[in-house]
Amino acid sequence: MEIDKVIHEPARLRIMMILQGVEEADFNFLLNTLGLTRGNLSRHMDKLESAGYIKIKKSFNGKLPYTSYQIMKKGLGALEQYWQNLDQVRKGSDLPAE
Amino acid sequence: MEIDKVIHEPARLRIMMILQGVEEADFNFLLNTLGLTRGNLSRHMDKLESAGYIKIKKSFNGKLPYTSYQIMKKGLGALEQYWQNLDQVRKGSDLPAE
Repeated sequence: MEIDKVIHEPARLRIMMILQGVEEADFNFLLNTLGLTRGNLSRHMDKLESAGYIKIKKSFNGKLPYTSYQIMKKGLGALEQYWQNLDQVRKGSDLPAE
Repeated sequence: MEIDKVIHEPARLRIMMILQGVEEADFNFLLNTLGLTRGNLSRHMDKLESAGYIKIKKSFNGKLPYTSYQIMKKGLGALEQYWQNLDQVRKGSDLPAE
């Protein structure tokens, strides 16, 4: 049983918890909610996309670029598994029996 | 509310969960239980000691060096706070209200 390090990183964990509760969230919303720098937020989103956990949608809002994010089925599954694994750690049931 | 990165690292989280349940644990027990390398385990224990979360006791078992570890009151408090903070993340209640 391995803790998924893509999700375990605190900022990414918060991002995943936000995305699992909404249809989609845009860059500025996440920026304001999480208090990260633009660069850090971008890097976290790229990492989540590389893992197949989220989809990045780039479009325009008038002339302004507009980026939004959706959690994917794979991401929802990984998030559920993550919390299950963490519950095992919490209960000590991930350790070999003596 | 910040996630304590000393505790959040998966191996150290497991170590803390083990230590909170016992009077003390020795190096070889942790090594066998966690499946880490000796060097990695040492580094994690040093980090936990630097944070004031554990105490390292070095002695001899006959002629063999014997190292054991105890969780400190500060470590128990930090561990409890860690899980509380993680529960907040899980419930989404660490995020600013809309």
